[in-house]
Amino acid sequence: MMKLLLVSLLLGLPLVRGRAQTPPLNLMPLPAKISPGQGRLAVDSAFRIALTGVDDPRLKPAAARLTQRLTLQTGIPLLLNLTPDATQATFVIHCEHAGEPVQKLGEDESYRLAVSGKQARLDAPNPLGVLRGIETFMQLVSADRQGFAAPAVAIDDAPRFPWRGLLLDVSRHWMPVEVVKRNLNAMAAVKLNVFHWHLSDDQGFRVECKSFPKLQEFGSDGQFYTQDQVRDVIAYARERGIRVIPEFDVPGHSTSWLVGYPELASAPGPYQIERKWGVFDPTMDPTRESTYEFLDRFIGEMSGLFPDEYFHIGGDEVTGRQWKANPRIQAFMREHGFKDNGELQAYFNKRMLDILKKHGKRMEGWDEILNPDLPKDIVIQAWRDRKALAQAADSGYQGILSVDYYVDLALPASLHYLVEPLDKELANLTETQKARVLGGEAAMWAEFVDAENVDSRLWPRTAAIAERFWSPRDVNDVASMYRRLEAVSRNLDWTGATHRSSYYAMLERLAGADPIEPLKTLADVVEPIKRYQRHRNHSYTQQTPLNRLVDAARPESDVAREFASLVDARDRQRVRVLLTQWRDNDASLRPELEKSFLLAELVPLSQDLSRLGTVGLQAVEALDSRKPKSVAWLSQQQALIDGARKPRAEVTLAIVPGIQKLLDQVRALK
Amino acid sequence: MMKLLLVSLLLGLPLVRGRAQTPPLNLMPLPAKISPGQGRLAVDSAFRIALTGVDDPRLKPAAARLTQRLTLQTGIPLLLNLTPDATQATFVIHCEHAGEPVQKLGEDESYRLAVSGKQARLDAPNPLGVLRGIETFMQLVSADRQGFAAPAVAIDDAPRFPWRGLLLDVSRHWMPVEVVKRNLNAMAAVKLNVFHWHLSDDQGFRVECKSFPKLQEFGSDGQFYTQDQVRDVIAYARERGIRVIPEFDVPGHSTSWLVGYPELASAPGPYQIERKWGVFDPTMDPTRESTYEFLDRFIGEMSGLFPDEYFHIGGDEVTGRQWKANPRIQAFMREHGFKDNGELQAYFNKRMLDILKKHGKRMEGWDEILNPDLPKDIVIQAWRDRKALAQAADSGYQGILSVDYYVDLALPASLHYLVEPLDKELANLTETQKARVLGGEAAMWAEFVDAENVDSRLWPRTAAIAERFWSPRDVNDVASMYRRLEAVSRNLDWTGATHRSSYYAMLERLAGADPIEPLKTLADVVEPIKRYQRHRNHSYTQQTPLNRLVDAARPESDVAREFASLVDARDRQRVRVLLTQWRDNDASLRPELEKSFLLAELVPLSQDLSRLGTVGLQAVEALDSRKPKSVAWLSQQQALIDGARKPRAEVTLAIVPGIQKLLDQVRALK
Repeated sequence: MMKLLLVSLLLGLPLVRGRAQTPPLNLMPLPAKISPGQGRLAVDSAFRIALTGVDDPRLKPAAARLTQRLTLQTGIPLLLNLTPDATQATFVIHCEHAGEPVQKLGEDESYRLAVSGKQARLDAPNPLGVLRGIETFMQLVSADRQGFAAPAVAIDDAPRFPWRGLLLDVSRHWMPVEVVKRNLNAMAAVKLNVFHWHLSDDQGFRVECKSFPKLQEFGSDGQFYTQDQVRDVIAYARERGIRVIPEFDVPGHSTSWLVGYPELASAPGPYQIERKWGVFDPTMDPTRESTYEFLDRFIGEMSGLFPDEYFHIGGDEVTGRQWKANPRIQAFMREHGFKDNGELQAYFNKRMLDILKKHGKRMEGWDEILNPDLPKDIVIQAWRDRKALAQAADSGYQGILSVDYYVDLALPASLHYLVEPLDKELANLTETQKARVLGGEAAMWAEFVDAENVDSRLWPRTAAIAERFWSPRDVNDVASMYRRLEAVSRNLDWTGATHRSSYYAMLERLAGADPIEPLKTLADVVEPIKRYQRHRNHSYTQQTPLNRLVDAARPESDVAREFASLVDARDRQRVRVLLTQWRDNDASLRPELEKSFLLAELVPLSQDLSRLGTVGLQAVEALDSRKPKSVAWLSQQQALIDGARKPRAEVTLAIVPGIQKLLDQVRALK
Repeated sequence: MMKLLLVSLLLGLPLVRGRAQTPPLNLMPLPAKISPGQGRLAVDSAFRIALTGVDDPRLKPAAARLTQRLTLQTGIPLLLNLTPDATQATFVIHCEHAGEPVQKLGEDESYRLAVSGKQARLDAPNPLGVLRGIETFMQLVSADRQGFAAPAVAIDDAPRFPWRGLLLDVSRHWMPVEVVKRNLNAMAAVKLNVFHWHLSDDQGFRVECKSFPKLQEFGSDGQFYTQDQVRDVIAYARERGIRVIPEFDVPGHSTSWLVGYPELASAPGPYQIERKWGVFDPTMDPTRESTYEFLDRFIGEMSGLFPDEYFHIGGDEVTGRQWKANPRIQAFMREHGFKDNGELQAYFNKRMLDILKKHGKRMEGWDEILNPDLPKDIVIQAWRDRKALAQAADSGYQGILSVDYYVDLALPASLHYLVEPLDKELANLTETQKARVLGGEAAMWAEFVDAENVDSRLWPRTAAIAERFWSPRDVNDVASMYRRLEAVSRNLDWTGATHRSSYYAMLERLAGADPIEPLKTLADVVEPIKRYQRHRNHSYTQQTPLNRLVDAARPESDVAREFASLVDARDRQRVRVLLTQWRDNDASLRPELEKSFLLAELVPLSQDLSRLGTVGLQAVEALDSRKPKSVAWLSQQQALIDGARKPRAEVTLAIVPGIQKLLDQVRALK
């Protein structure tokens, strides 16, 4: 029965014949169990909250945030209105037990939420469940014909995986505290619970270190978090039920450390902050005791700053070139009988493990650190392939999956959404082994994002990944996901995320004093080139402005997806409206494009869009009249479509597949 | 010659025949003198600043803000790059003298800005001139075919009036610190220099008072500024060259004081915070010494908090009903020989003046306080009519004008723009008397705005008023103003003002999960009802949500203005595109409108828009074919237009005048 309910809700179908159709619930992640009820709970200026049960310091701030978010979401000016009398409350929040002083992996996040026409009631064993349930409640609230309301419903929910993370790279481009905070808000809204803070890399060292102040003084261009800011962010995350795991990537990806402390390196300095993207040679020297003395003091200081049990040491992409070129290191390897750089790095990792243990931390690292010599209490983050994770789980290690969850690669939400953590290489694991897969992490590497557009690369797509980590395995209807994703995207607006507003601001910058509409028509149907295509352009540096159309364009074009489904549905009227707009757009846009160096590169793209519009309109005409077209015509149009597939200005026209479908429909005419 | 240059720039005309056309400069307020030069100064990642001359603590932060704003404006990641060597700088900023420790009325704001192909040089006698000149420079930067650049130009600038203010009412709706700060940023961008902070009124007392804490405890719903926040705002304003003048409105408009201190009132309490809009009876008792003892201690504390020389005591709209009803007050009036309430209020004002003088302040008040018994060093703010200001200037008082600068009344920018302070009743004053008119203030009363939409009511229209206060009197070309206003509006985006972004957010809330485009098509052509029409709806309270279309709609429809000018220009092709969109919009919008209580009121409005589109299209058809239409047809269409004039849901369709023009053109066909 539960399954039926779930499917009905997903598809927006009426649950019971004869009963008035319930609008589908725009929840994401979708709860484990939902039972729709009868009626609605009005959300109006009389909204009152009762907090009952245990008194955890996170609960009142959560009630205040709920009030503030409802004010934003509805426009009703609400002040936090707490009542001690649960019978008088609109929303009763009951928490059974206090939480851990530092949020723990696997700490109970379950909750039950029952909304009736009279009251909403949230019950959770632990404050974390309260936080999750409040987010669900906020997603339930929308305007109907009477006012703002939450529909009557009973929800029984708990996460599938205990580790649901997001990595944010703040090294390659600097992300000020407000960027971090607004994205923690957004993470909480979709029930992510681990903020993986990638704090150092070749291109920047981003935390104040008191023991070794040259780290931030020489390694950050002045763009780093003070320790007070770090504590503030951690407290902010804790209030939202999010663990903060720092990553300091060693021994590779460490150029920024070496600017102030070249003595750590495996080759003589001096070093400069790396400004380009890629994998670089500077690597710490694993053969000197002074390296470990430095790291011991460093980790000691950082262990005090970051309270989470886990500590991420990176460990990825060590080129080994500096090691090979250094006779002293080569001699060390011979002395210790290390066959290759992998064994030397394993030695380094074991030393790191000792240091972390001494400071009370558990080690986490990228899949390169996997080595049978390391004990089983470390956590492996798989990024290269799933085999590493399967192998880790098989040999008794816990692990998390990041493969195919890299949201910086501008891939569609559906692609990430359908990546099932326990599938493929992991499908044959035993249940015990599978249980070692703690969850996953989306990753936002920052080569091609900065504080202005990073939100637009994170949201809403990361919400689809969050659903994969939270919801039951069989929740995987892509159409339902996209429908709910649009609603979630709007709700994320109220968390402060700028994924929607930055689009307009960036288009206005591009348009200068001209109207943005023609530019938006183009921008709405393009997507940045995918995966590592942009990385192949080696002219990029940390200082390259990210102010072009490719930087404003959304990773996934909603208009193009909608267009393709209209073509599939043979809704030729609406298809024609879009095609006409595209055909005619170049005439208005061209004069704007010619005024500005930022837009000049878009001239051929705009022409292509116009051509695709023309091809499409001719195809629709043929389909309307059911007259087959000549082979010559078909091949001419095919050539135009193929021409428009070519990336220009690092974007592609995402409507090409839809236009291709139209042409194929014409080709099928007999 | 200067005049010719000015006019050419205003109209975007080429200055010299044969020379390549210079694009018009999008400056607002327009500087006193502009001489265009040859070439352009590139603004790129090599941008460096030299600060020379006197070292004022406001200069380096100003350079940092310039750098940060240029980063936002261009997307080029710039870090503050100061060089001691002026020859190496892109932008040399030279300041001759230090400024006053507390910014003074009339302190020198002049500057010269010379931009050549090699360097920009800003010279100012005083830090205030530097701040003004930097804003001018930022407005000069835009993208051309080579990159971002400022055109070569020589500007010699100084304000026409020394008092250029904006009043913000934070009492009727609460405006948190971030709202104040982002609007101070925007004020600085258009060279306004007085922030008139309307801090108390019947509906809220908004400052922490340590001597009388029940003021904020009982008078603010917890929504007040702490003294630390006040100091922070004042410092923030000072860094931007803005004086902060507090207004505590007495003896009327004071209900919120009386909640905690009913003993101040002229009638027995208890009092509640007023939740409605209007003019209310609660008034302080001017006959008791205890009232003045209270006010002495209060003003003493506030004088320490607000460093500006001027202190605004309100003084407007005293109904006198409580005085009339109180036998003790009536007896007091008889004893003192006061003929009417006006004389009693004058007595109160004199006592206030003594208190203010004791604490080192000069008194400012609304025009009701004008009374020959008061000394000449007070400042009169005219709001009811210009006569009061003429009379004040005539009798030796200084004054400022707010009549016709009330930006809360949703009037067009052009209306405010063309209000010349020294015109009409003031035209016949002598030069000495005219010099007593210190300037003016735009006023944003907060009955119908809250933190979410206040920016959209302030900007960009207030920039046009700022130009009126700053620029030479003969700068008054409305078409030029509107063209520049659009550019300024976009630039104001980078100051943090939310006048553009909140529009989308509010439309998305209204649209719920549906697309916003059809709703935006409607919203783009409506305007809130004007002047005090909305005040006549007495169902409004402080708690009424401001989440309807009328709250999202811009005070002035750019689309409607553009449409009217296309009709004037007989550009029937573009007219037809708009009309078609309007005619067809209801079909997409109607199903959305029927889903939500927030939108249901828009059904007739959307129908009217569709009808106007149809009327317009038929008119265009008649004009195209040059065939006169029948009288019956004309009167039928006229009836439809007249029907659409009626406000619905507190908005009007701003395209009605344009449609009317089309019909009139048809009527003229012979």
